[in-house]
Amino acid sequence: MSLARKRENSVVSHGQTRPGGRSARVQASVHKATTELLEEIGRDALTIPAIAERAGVTPSTIYRRWGDLQELLADVAVERFRPEEDPKDTGDARKDLELWVEAFAEEFSSAPGREMIRDVLAGRSGAEMPGAGKPGKCSAYTKVQIEEIAARAKARGVPFPDTTAIMDHVIAPLVYRILFYEPPSAELVRSLIATVYELSLETAT
Amino acid sequence: MSLARKRENSVVSHGQTRPGGRSARVQASVHKATTELLEEIGRDALTIPAIAERAGVTPSTIYRRWGDLQELLADVAVERFRPEEDPKDTGDARKDLELWVEAFAEEFSSAPGREMIRDVLAGRSGAEMPGAGKPGKCSAYTKVQIEEIAARAKARGVPFPDTTAIMDHVIAPLVYRILFYEPPSAELVRSLIATVYELSLETAT
Repeated sequence: MSLARKRENSVVSHGQTRPGGRSARVQASVHKATTELLEEIGRDALTIPAIAERAGVTPSTIYRRWGDLQELLADVAVERFRPEEDPKDTGDARKDLELWVEAFAEEFSSAPGREMIRDVLAGRSGAEMPGAGKPGKCSAYTKVQIEEIAARAKARGVPFPDTTAIMDHVIAPLVYRILFYEPPSAELVRSLIATVYELSLETAT
Repeated sequence: MSLARKRENSVVSHGQTRPGGRSARVQASVHKATTELLEEIGRDALTIPAIAERAGVTPSTIYRRWGDLQELLADVAVERFRPEEDPKDTGDARKDLELWVEAFAEEFSSAPGREMIRDVLAGRSGAEMPGAGKPGKCSAYTKVQIEEIAARAKARGVPFPDTTAIMDHVIAPLVYRILFYEPPSAELVRSLIATVYELSLETAT
């Protein structure tokens, strides 16, 4: 089991649901119905009754569990941040980081990607305690992937920047640009990574 | 007229409204009513009819102009990003930057501040073209303030980091932390500013 997989399990919690129980099945089918309908009819036409019908549950099941559509969308969006596989291992940790961050920037720069970040932030739990709520889960998923690459670098005895520095000086500027002004280019990704390497090498000497 | 004031005017556009016209008066009274009611009854109890009553307009005026409550809240939130005065001038540009960024971090780390950022991002125009929409306006307001401090440094012949570097390595990590995991401390603000100075001095040599 990889580091990413192990940490992921400790980070992810489905609240009250027992895996494999009825509650988990309801969650899975409601998430699936939401994702499908988002693609088919788009978010403006999306309603809880339509999702309920597709998922084979009653609307009141959805209202009881999620409260409203916004909260359900936030939940679905968080799941999309969950890593599906370990970052690619090319044998060169810096290259792995570049590839992983480029894919991250590309995914979240697209219109549906930006929508996902906005959904995560718009969810109720985002309002009070960012660290404990859905946004905190998303940044934890991102960190886990970076730490996986860091662990490989460490195993090979190669210097690698601190995860916090990568979050502050690579991930944060990308997410800020995606949300506030312009989709970042692959060149920008590489230049931010060069900056964070520079910063970490200085601290090391 | 200060640089901040001049640039601000070029950045700000009230769409179709003529300043001083009926439309501008409606906007001002609806914004004021929204801000007051947000404080008095909170966002969960806020409705368009309640805002209309307080503002002395009909609900349909609000629906026609803003479409829905979320869009009105986004509009009101953007206005709060608009600079009210130039950053304090202590005679030391780095100190000015520290003070201004500390106040920025403190304001947007509070629960209402975080809510404002989320409202700006949740507005409809945020979805399609971040640069042209409300989020773009907010980051432009932030840049204008930083450029005001940069202009003072330049006038005095003092080295000062590039505005883009400050946005990427100071503002972005603060906003990312505020939205995704934890309110930043004043120490973090100073350490991010130290980092961006370090980066800019390297490039200069």
